[in-house]
Amino acid sequence: MSRFFSGKYSLLTPYTPGEQPKDMKYVKLNTNESPYPPSKGVYEAVRKEAERLHLYSDPECTELTQKIANRYGVCADQVLVTNGSDEILNFAFMAFCDSNRGIAFADITYGFYSVFAELNNIKYKIIPLKDDFTIDLSDYYELEENIVIANPNAPTGIALPRDEIEKLVRSNPNRVVIVDEAYVDFGAESCVPLVEKYDNLLVTMTFSKSRSMAGGRIGFGIGSKELICDLNTIKYSTNPYNVNRLSQIAGSRAIDDDEYYMNNAKKIIKTREYTKKNLEALGFEVLSSSANFLFAKSDKINGEELYLKLKQRGVLVRHFTKPKIADFNRITIGTREQMDVLLTQIKAILEGEK
Amino acid sequence: MSRFFSGKYSLLTPYTPGEQPKDMKYVKLNTNESPYPPSKGVYEAVRKEAERLHLYSDPECTELTQKIANRYGVCADQVLVTNGSDEILNFAFMAFCDSNRGIAFADITYGFYSVFAELNNIKYKIIPLKDDFTIDLSDYYELEENIVIANPNAPTGIALPRDEIEKLVRSNPNRVVIVDEAYVDFGAESCVPLVEKYDNLLVTMTFSKSRSMAGGRIGFGIGSKELICDLNTIKYSTNPYNVNRLSQIAGSRAIDDDEYYMNNAKKIIKTREYTKKNLEALGFEVLSSSANFLFAKSDKINGEELYLKLKQRGVLVRHFTKPKIADFNRITIGTREQMDVLLTQIKAILEGEK
Repeated sequence: MSRFFSGKYSLLTPYTPGEQPKDMKYVKLNTNESPYPPSKGVYEAVRKEAERLHLYSDPECTELTQKIANRYGVCADQVLVTNGSDEILNFAFMAFCDSNRGIAFADITYGFYSVFAELNNIKYKIIPLKDDFTIDLSDYYELEENIVIANPNAPTGIALPRDEIEKLVRSNPNRVVIVDEAYVDFGAESCVPLVEKYDNLLVTMTFSKSRSMAGGRIGFGIGSKELICDLNTIKYSTNPYNVNRLSQIAGSRAIDDDEYYMNNAKKIIKTREYTKKNLEALGFEVLSSSANFLFAKSDKINGEELYLKLKQRGVLVRHFTKPKIADFNRITIGTREQMDVLLTQIKAILEGEK
Repeated sequence: MSRFFSGKYSLLTPYTPGEQPKDMKYVKLNTNESPYPPSKGVYEAVRKEAERLHLYSDPECTELTQKIANRYGVCADQVLVTNGSDEILNFAFMAFCDSNRGIAFADITYGFYSVFAELNNIKYKIIPLKDDFTIDLSDYYELEENIVIANPNAPTGIALPRDEIEKLVRSNPNRVVIVDEAYVDFGAESCVPLVEKYDNLLVTMTFSKSRSMAGGRIGFGIGSKELICDLNTIKYSTNPYNVNRLSQIAGSRAIDDDEYYMNNAKKIIKTREYTKKNLEALGFEVLSSSANFLFAKSDKINGEELYLKLKQRGVLVRHFTKPKIADFNRITIGTREQMDVLLTQIKAILEGEK
């Protein structure tokens, strides 16, 4: 820390991204990336677009915004594209929360929510999940705070049905409800159909998971024109050219090839259920997941030990040290072959092999 | 505006990017882009990297950071790469300014500084340029505020010598001095050699101008390890994966091809001086520029009228409505051919042709 760093950040603890080790090649099941590369149309479009890199990107992301709007059945002015969905989440915390209006979220959820709150000096209310890791929606009715819910939740993978979330949105008409649908394409119900009805609902999504573009940094939000207008005010006061030219074209081509990505999502769901069944056969407790990962624990080995032993054997999963979930590991669903490596290694570890 | 927008932004006026019209093809001299495309090495690298878009980008931008460090003769931990230089500027405003520590900058300078200050609720002190549009450095000695100076300044193009800026950095040892060197490669002296000596100096640069990558969104800052550490705290609390995979590889290849870009900068300087001479021959007053643009006015036609008439004739320049500079237009230096079109059209306008 320098002697110039503002005291307002004295308690700020930055987010820790999943490890990206460079020492060896791992079966990497720790950051919820897709095991499938982008569609071929993306490559050539990007190559061609690189010839125009000397020109600013379109600050309005016109083509990509329109394609997303068409894909989700909304108007272009109900969509804002950002540099990953972390950016739209931060914009939403900035725009709708302040010293008078805090934000509420679960104790076990995406770890960045508390960081955004601390960064922006926003009070946050943490609402514990039930013992089975589900959300008790009655805890969220008529809150003083805005609300952010990851659906499906991370790192549990558990999803709420749309009509349950609708009750929550309806019961908090004067609070913004952000539904973070980063993982929605792996089996949950999207709340996008509700944005026409509720002016207090913002749905955020990402190209990082089902659309195989974690490295492209494209996120977006869908909400009322008015919410999107406010988020645009933040964007144009922060970084008007927030989405670069190559990612914009890659995102547009990805929407063109939607079927490829949605089929990949189906494959991942199938592999997830295969993996779950096999982990259960090995004695694991595995939460019911609607995401591209599983959250699993075993009575035979503690979470951290399993994580470390798997790492020694070249398989990376993600372990969180928070006591309530320290017994678990979050395992990204890769290809069937990758999951077989995982299962083989877990079996070997449980059998005490070296 | 929605009914949910935080009152803290009630006075916030977002930045207005230069227009990017879609209605026709212009000779586009309004946003200070390079007329030269990126080097060929960039294209193929980007095409190849697109196959890995499903994997997160390196949050540390390890390769690009190291290459920038080597290029500028500093250590990697003295460099932070961001999503355009607007991002590092905003991070610096966030990190080093607060309700107790404001920021000072010129009345005529990059228009985003006041927006960042308003966005972050930071008081700012505006220091008028002298009548000849130069900075009076004595206005900046022993200030209460942190300082940001664009060098060369925009939209004037006027540069201060390094030893003048050093005096300012030295006279404000307890204030952070940000030197925004977006245009430094077009003839100004960089302050990077001073960062070893002064822990209160942050130099910011961009790939958008001399490195032909406005569409790639790469900016960076160079300063003491401690300043960079603080900026990293902000980055990891805002958007850890802020620079996408394609831009990282494009930036790395651009540093590999440094000679190509620095030669282009020389060509642009030559074209700038050619254009300046010809504008002066047409009766214009043209400020002495060390950037890739000229700031020029004519007694024969007012600034806005010239801008509009040029636009009608397919040439876009940038006009600012601020009274002190409303007589001027900022003209980006393109290719020699583009500047000849500009000169021909200006001549025709002055001669009253239709």
